[in-house]
Amino acid sequence: MTAHTTRPAGQTLFLAARDVADVVNHLGLATCLARVADRIEADFRRWPSFDKSPRSACHTEHGVVELMPVADSTCFAFKYVNGHPANTSLGLPTVMAFGVLADMHTGAPRLLAELTLATAIRTAAMSALAARHLARPNPRVMALIGNGAQAEFQALAFQALLGVQAVRLYDTDPAATRKLMHNLAASGLHLTRCASVHEAVQGADIITTVTADKTRAAVLTAEMLSPGQHINAVGGDCPGKTELHPEVLQQARVFCEYEPQTRIEGDIQQLAPDFPVTELWRVLTGSHAGRQGDHELTVFDSVGFALEDFSMLQVLDDAARRLGVGVPIDLVAQPPNPKDLYSLLRRPAAPFATATPSATAAHSAPQVSPEVDLAAAL
Amino acid sequence: MTAHTTRPAGQTLFLAARDVADVVNHLGLATCLARVADRIEADFRRWPSFDKSPRSACHTEHGVVELMPVADSTCFAFKYVNGHPANTSLGLPTVMAFGVLADMHTGAPRLLAELTLATAIRTAAMSALAARHLARPNPRVMALIGNGAQAEFQALAFQALLGVQAVRLYDTDPAATRKLMHNLAASGLHLTRCASVHEAVQGADIITTVTADKTRAAVLTAEMLSPGQHINAVGGDCPGKTELHPEVLQQARVFCEYEPQTRIEGDIQQLAPDFPVTELWRVLTGSHAGRQGDHELTVFDSVGFALEDFSMLQVLDDAARRLGVGVPIDLVAQPPNPKDLYSLLRRPAAPFATATPSATAAHSAPQVSPEVDLAAAL
Repeated sequence: MTAHTTRPAGQTLFLAARDVADVVNHLGLATCLARVADRIEADFRRWPSFDKSPRSACHTEHGVVELMPVADSTCFAFKYVNGHPANTSLGLPTVMAFGVLADMHTGAPRLLAELTLATAIRTAAMSALAARHLARPNPRVMALIGNGAQAEFQALAFQALLGVQAVRLYDTDPAATRKLMHNLAASGLHLTRCASVHEAVQGADIITTVTADKTRAAVLTAEMLSPGQHINAVGGDCPGKTELHPEVLQQARVFCEYEPQTRIEGDIQQLAPDFPVTELWRVLTGSHAGRQGDHELTVFDSVGFALEDFSMLQVLDDAARRLGVGVPIDLVAQPPNPKDLYSLLRRPAAPFATATPSATAAHSAPQVSPEVDLAAAL
Repeated sequence: MTAHTTRPAGQTLFLAARDVADVVNHLGLATCLARVADRIEADFRRWPSFDKSPRSACHTEHGVVELMPVADSTCFAFKYVNGHPANTSLGLPTVMAFGVLADMHTGAPRLLAELTLATAIRTAAMSALAARHLARPNPRVMALIGNGAQAEFQALAFQALLGVQAVRLYDTDPAATRKLMHNLAASGLHLTRCASVHEAVQGADIITTVTADKTRAAVLTAEMLSPGQHINAVGGDCPGKTELHPEVLQQARVFCEYEPQTRIEGDIQQLAPDFPVTELWRVLTGSHAGRQGDHELTVFDSVGFALEDFSMLQVLDDAARRLGVGVPIDLVAQPPNPKDLYSLLRRPAAPFATATPSATAAHSAPQVSPEVDLAAAL
């Protein structure tokens, strides 16, 4: 480690999946949600200082892989995230993610972190932040349509940040609702299992839709709704995937994160390109109105934007360094003389297991040894 | 590790800087260059099967950070790479890079690898591959203008893949040329230090320009050149950074990797948007001619394209797994029930060093412990 400890600025802190969970558990999920929401709000309020672009996406028949970059003058962040609905049948999550925070003055990556759990946290924090500005004051009841992987985080964010006390649950899969009720049993939330979307939304101040179906669905239709409700539409988040009937959008005032991306991916993809929509940062800075009366229907058409991951990575970076979680890795090279890249090859090769014909049987198994000590390998 | 060893498909193989150097040393640099060139050629020959886009870039006054994604129907790859000319004064390389290879069927990241060294290798392999199709047969002498971090790799690639025997060197910084001559002393190449670009290019079959100056430079002008030379222009690779006088391009037949990106970043950024240029894959597949005579001047306007990193990552992945190099990491989460992300938080938090006021002094130092065993932490 000698060569590296003299230049720690060049090493990257790595937070594996377990490390991120440990950081969140140490902070407490409610505190973490609040901290991320505050950080997102602060970052959204300085919206014009960011270099923004819609995420890049590579599609196949199986799913999508996306890169979501964003930067200000000091920090660059990006997230890698996939969406593969059939993954659960293989024992893999539908969505997996990781991200990097880097220094814009040098380009050196500062943090590499698993972001699957963190994506659910930042999405819920974003939802609650938007609702704080768009829902009627003091909401008490939320309908939660879609009780899958993200549902717990949505319920707990609205409890912690808006004081929601009761959640009315519906999912086409009863097992998902059972899982959710089990996970939230000790939360203090009053949970009601409902037999339909229509039943779930009765009396709700806020309706959160977070369904996984990758089609143009109309989970919510206009006749189900009551004046004054706020709709937090999370699951219409890629081309061809929507949750709201167009009439719902036409009767509401609609807010989004980053308009160029939401036009392609959000529920408003169903409407004309000039359908009026307000970017949330304008509400947060006070330049545009949020809710304008108790009888207005509001929609937050959330697709997830890179700046939320930027904020999440900052919170993780701060907390992990304070707590001493994570390991430093050589994610990028640090030759002793930075102009002499070739010198990296000058060290003798480590003694490897040579690939002989007799080793062929081992080739079908993963060729990595779990017992390798990374610190020693650096 | 129990939970993870049952689902190894979900883990990612990590190759740190040292691991990549070990793989290259084990293969031998010449073999590695040849293998990468072959892989790039095979991938370029199936060009239409890739989902391609120009790289995304975030610029500041200090430099640029880029993401370079590309995918076919089975694999997704991206590279993170920066360019910060003032980094060497901080002891950091100007360019640092890492990349990921992922499975398009599931979105699971398969390989995470340091790519600074690998970027120099794939760039040199690409240069030699292009020259194999664009230079006159049996080149013997190469001029190498710019003797910085990438110069060794260019010289050795042209020796290994084209049989170049003599290299004529020039750099504005004599220390760079000394470093290069030292590193290549045992290569078998005949090396000549030259006093000017003009002197270096005399009698050269191939002229490689790989300078770092981030300006519109004219390192090569038309009157320096002789008929039949091939120019491998590597250092004009971002907006505002060029190496060739426009007349050089106008007198030559010009080839590039991916036209939409080269129009923005390459030496042809100086010319009209309809200046004729041929994408190299068309030459490799035989649909377009390469060099058409011994007196023609040819230019490969190379800026570096994501597909070269895709090919490089494939070579690294194959070799590292065969050699047993690298460590598996939990780059993405693997909850036991993929629909129950919340379960990741159910494990008790690890005992951390609590951040008390008395620990403040430690906060200025990196808050990571080099002695942590990553395998144990997973």
